[in-house]
Amino acid sequence: MTDSEFAFIDWIRSRTAAHANVALGIGDDAALLQNLDEAGCLVAVDMVLEGVHFAIPPATPRLAGRKALAVNLSDVAAMAARPIAAFTSVAFPRSRQGEFAREVQAGIEELAAEFSTAIAGGDTNAWDGPLVISVTVIGEAAGGRVVGRSGARPGDWILTTGEFGASLIGKHLEFQPRVRESLLLHELASLHAMIDVSDGLVADLQHILEESDVGAVLQEDAIPVSEAARGIGDARTPLEHALYDGEDFELLLTVDAADGRKLLANPPVEVKLSHIGEITDSRICELVDCANNRKPLQRGGWEHAF
Amino acid sequence: MTDSEFAFIDWIRSRTAAHANVALGIGDDAALLQNLDEAGCLVAVDMVLEGVHFAIPPATPRLAGRKALAVNLSDVAAMAARPIAAFTSVAFPRSRQGEFAREVQAGIEELAAEFSTAIAGGDTNAWDGPLVISVTVIGEAAGGRVVGRSGARPGDWILTTGEFGASLIGKHLEFQPRVRESLLLHELASLHAMIDVSDGLVADLQHILEESDVGAVLQEDAIPVSEAARGIGDARTPLEHALYDGEDFELLLTVDAADGRKLLANPPVEVKLSHIGEITDSRICELVDCANNRKPLQRGGWEHAF
Repeated sequence: MTDSEFAFIDWIRSRTAAHANVALGIGDDAALLQNLDEAGCLVAVDMVLEGVHFAIPPATPRLAGRKALAVNLSDVAAMAARPIAAFTSVAFPRSRQGEFAREVQAGIEELAAEFSTAIAGGDTNAWDGPLVISVTVIGEAAGGRVVGRSGARPGDWILTTGEFGASLIGKHLEFQPRVRESLLLHELASLHAMIDVSDGLVADLQHILEESDVGAVLQEDAIPVSEAARGIGDARTPLEHALYDGEDFELLLTVDAADGRKLLANPPVEVKLSHIGEITDSRICELVDCANNRKPLQRGGWEHAF
Repeated sequence: MTDSEFAFIDWIRSRTAAHANVALGIGDDAALLQNLDEAGCLVAVDMVLEGVHFAIPPATPRLAGRKALAVNLSDVAAMAARPIAAFTSVAFPRSRQGEFAREVQAGIEELAAEFSTAIAGGDTNAWDGPLVISVTVIGEAAGGRVVGRSGARPGDWILTTGEFGASLIGKHLEFQPRVRESLLLHELASLHAMIDVSDGLVADLQHILEESDVGAVLQEDAIPVSEAARGIGDARTPLEHALYDGEDFELLLTVDAADGRKLLANPPVEVKLSHIGEITDSRICELVDCANNRKPLQRGGWEHAF
């Protein structure tokens, strides 16, 4: 490491508050987390790359840092877990250290503070390539149990938070990871399967279907299409954007019909909760339109399915 | 993610064996590790970058993957902890997926298997930049206690494993992380402070001195200078290479004199164990040569100190 890298780490360390679960944080070769829920230690790892997951501009360095942590918090939310600590490994372009690097860090720290997540370690590098931020978030099970992708059962209702489509217009940089929503839903209902929608509504539903060995039927008029998708006005319909665009980072989950009815009748979360379809035992994924026509939905994206 | 990225992850998953600590691994949004030592969950995060930490050639993609995991296992060893599971986030150059990506993964897997470390998750991307591999290793405390950098005390002996200098000639790609050595030393002696030498022998000793608020005096003729450093024949002396080159990934540790004598009299490890100096209460770091001349050693590197 160079002197400026050491100085940057000292600066980060000086801004880091104590945290009940962090016994050893920045300043050792590894961090030690203690007193996690005995159900285990949850680990999410995700990397964002300049030119792939964001560009600067329109993103600022602060938003790039924020997104790097947000996608990981979203993964923790998808498991109905509680985030505890974040670790960042960053490659800064050599020409953009100093204030640029501090802005990236500030974006990470602001979001971490919002979710009571400690910054407990990481790795800083300078190079001639674009900005790379890999984040690891350690979480703990809430209520002693996490929710995976493999528990969906025929007859389950498929629910989503929020709206879908055209997140590239802005939401992909500023979305709120659904950590609180996930914990509330987990507390009030038995969540059978859950995922966060990063690859696209259909693509991520397919992950649940494959892991659970089931199928699904979605109601076209129940898909919550975002304002951004309605307004985009390109060759694809707003529905196609909602079904196939990625990076909405909303929750997609299944519960039995009784829990579904209960949650919809009295939604525990402020964000919109939608009942978009049901799990079937058919192993195929279909969309039913208003005229009751059925179309198969494929993971590959809108150009294959329409 | 693209279809080829999904296929690559399926390929990785198909090669992954069950592991007693991995309750949920590849195939969910995050992994769940269980039954870790109750002393806590140790987290090491380190990134290697093409053009900074390796070049291909002379490294192969397999050696690049190996190094990415090895530097993290070395960090876990530096804490006297036991590695449990590894997570990788990788950015592959778009032109080098397929066999190249499988070779990187094979390099990671081979070393993981050597250290009974599960591959429990990660993130795969393709982009137009160079190869980036960020690895997170989760470990557990051995014997209920980890060893940090802040426990060195005046009078402690300073010990090292192995030899130092000119690791760039080859060792930096093929070094053995000192996981087993660290656990053996931890079992037989009370290790006061430990670090793995990545930045350089003097630079990493300075980390211990700063965190422990102490000084050190090193004996010039006790520094274990590597064959590679003796043979390099450039403007620097072999000793300068040993003191200031980075990436030897050997252990640097302090123990009280009684433990030091015991370990040196009957070394528990196959690799060379050297007694290179003592901790002092002076807060400065000095080198004593054969004629008993003292020279201050600075973190900045050989050009400042000589």
